[in-house]
Amino acid sequence: MKLITVGTVAFDRIETPFGTAEKVVGGAATYISLAASFFLERSGVVSVVGGDFPREVMDDLRSRGIDLEGLEVMPDKESFFWAGRYHYDMNTRDTLETRLNVLLDLDPTLPAAYREAPYLMLGNLDPGVQAKVLDQMAEPPALVVMDTMNFWMDSALEALHKVIGRVDILAINDAEARQLSGEHSLVKAASKILAMGPRHLVVKKGEHGALLFSGDRVFFAPALPLEDIVDPTGAGDTFAGGLIGYLASTGDHSFENLKRAIIVGSAMASFCCERFGIERLLELDRASIDRRIREFVDLVDFDIQVVDQ
Amino acid sequence: MKLITVGTVAFDRIETPFGTAEKVVGGAATYISLAASFFLERSGVVSVVGGDFPREVMDDLRSRGIDLEGLEVMPDKESFFWAGRYHYDMNTRDTLETRLNVLLDLDPTLPAAYREAPYLMLGNLDPGVQAKVLDQMAEPPALVVMDTMNFWMDSALEALHKVIGRVDILAINDAEARQLSGEHSLVKAASKILAMGPRHLVVKKGEHGALLFSGDRVFFAPALPLEDIVDPTGAGDTFAGGLIGYLASTGDHSFENLKRAIIVGSAMASFCCERFGIERLLELDRASIDRRIREFVDLVDFDIQVVDQ
Repeated sequence: MKLITVGTVAFDRIETPFGTAEKVVGGAATYISLAASFFLERSGVVSVVGGDFPREVMDDLRSRGIDLEGLEVMPDKESFFWAGRYHYDMNTRDTLETRLNVLLDLDPTLPAAYREAPYLMLGNLDPGVQAKVLDQMAEPPALVVMDTMNFWMDSALEALHKVIGRVDILAINDAEARQLSGEHSLVKAASKILAMGPRHLVVKKGEHGALLFSGDRVFFAPALPLEDIVDPTGAGDTFAGGLIGYLASTGDHSFENLKRAIIVGSAMASFCCERFGIERLLELDRASIDRRIREFVDLVDFDIQVVDQ
Repeated sequence: MKLITVGTVAFDRIETPFGTAEKVVGGAATYISLAASFFLERSGVVSVVGGDFPREVMDDLRSRGIDLEGLEVMPDKESFFWAGRYHYDMNTRDTLETRLNVLLDLDPTLPAAYREAPYLMLGNLDPGVQAKVLDQMAEPPALVVMDTMNFWMDSALEALHKVIGRVDILAINDAEARQLSGEHSLVKAASKILAMGPRHLVVKKGEHGALLFSGDRVFFAPALPLEDIVDPTGAGDTFAGGLIGYLASTGDHSFENLKRAIIVGSAMASFCCERFGIERLLELDRASIDRRIREFVDLVDFDIQVVDQ
């Protein structure tokens, strides 16, 4: 198994100014492993769901090479549930409800087959749980990518710093990068965050694209201007899934290949926004993904001659 | 004379969370013609100032090939004055004070030497004044670029639409594009605005870069991530000045060259933000500009192989 993903597998209720989706399947690990499945034969998920989680969704995930041995099912409990409402700009949202349910009991024990995986994705979760997963790996993975959120910066900063110090790539949004560093300038924020341990920082800016900081180098990836954004839920996780899936499939961790991985992640995220929940991801194929990546190539392509000084 | 710019020449008082500049020289036409001066031997300015406007600044502009025959001086009056305060994010601002002063009397008569210019930049001004300048051109210019703002959408929409229908490139910010079109999606906004007449729409997004829409084609230009943004005042005008200056110097209005012009404009705008007012622009040379353009090339450069479907 090339990739292990730890994160939530959940139900979401999503309100946007243009429509509402009641109780659709979501969760960071769901989006991440789905996005990665287009680049990898097999990956494993570490998470927990309740007895209410649909069997057919689990079967569908399995049919895509997503191993669920690490997905604990607690038959007498309910799955994690999140409800949110997007503002008119579709770039900001309010959380309406969070029912942790099974998540309160998440204390993952990694299946033996997971412990040798060379790629590990730590989806947004309690940093204590992220650390526990890292600790159970047989040896340090070749590449660890981590996501987190403001909640853990407010409530578990020390534990968070410990995990950040152990990962290769931290992928968070611009507001989170600012909060974590205490710097408004993303250039300064990146410099401080890279000093915390990660070799690379990816700053996700939603409809404004993403930035990759790596030592003194910086790369700016666009977001595809979409006619309609139906639902941005999971776009950040889908981005991360495309990114780590591409890196795991190529085995190349150079800066040049990281840039490609970010374009792949951006392409996957653009699909995610076109429908509610995971709907659009479920119907994708490699040909559509390649066409979308080609759109990204064209989107930023220019050719200007500058005399080298 | 290749280029004529109509717009304000003014004083600004600028407050940012990190410092304040009292009564510095500003105005759209100042930034535009300064930025364009690095690409053109000579250009002309159509505007008005009061007796308080410093002689030495006018002499400096002239020394850069900026002809001021079209700049009326009203000795007994005061120059246009704007005061604004930037929020902590440096991307939004409040206007604290606007003293129109001489601007109330702006009723430009173009010098004979200006009327044959092939490039015309209509800086943000009363659309009635913009139309008056267009009317005085001997024949339709080869290329007209226009800027405007929400104020004219609120107060002079009909006159504004008439001018928009006569220009080649409309360059406005994202909020203005949304207001003008009534569409939140920039893709839909662009489609509606292009139907109003312009062949190209440039949407300026500040620290998030710029988008070029042209028929069905779209191009995404990054903004350079800066360590410190000292003062974004005039960045949009500097962008427009670099854009039209480059287009005028090359004489090539193809989509490929428009993309280059947007990169040049973005490079010029990035300099503008590094100091208060026009300070940074005054000390630039072509070598620094070329180095900055090279940074933009590197910033978005990636190479990904996609099998053509």
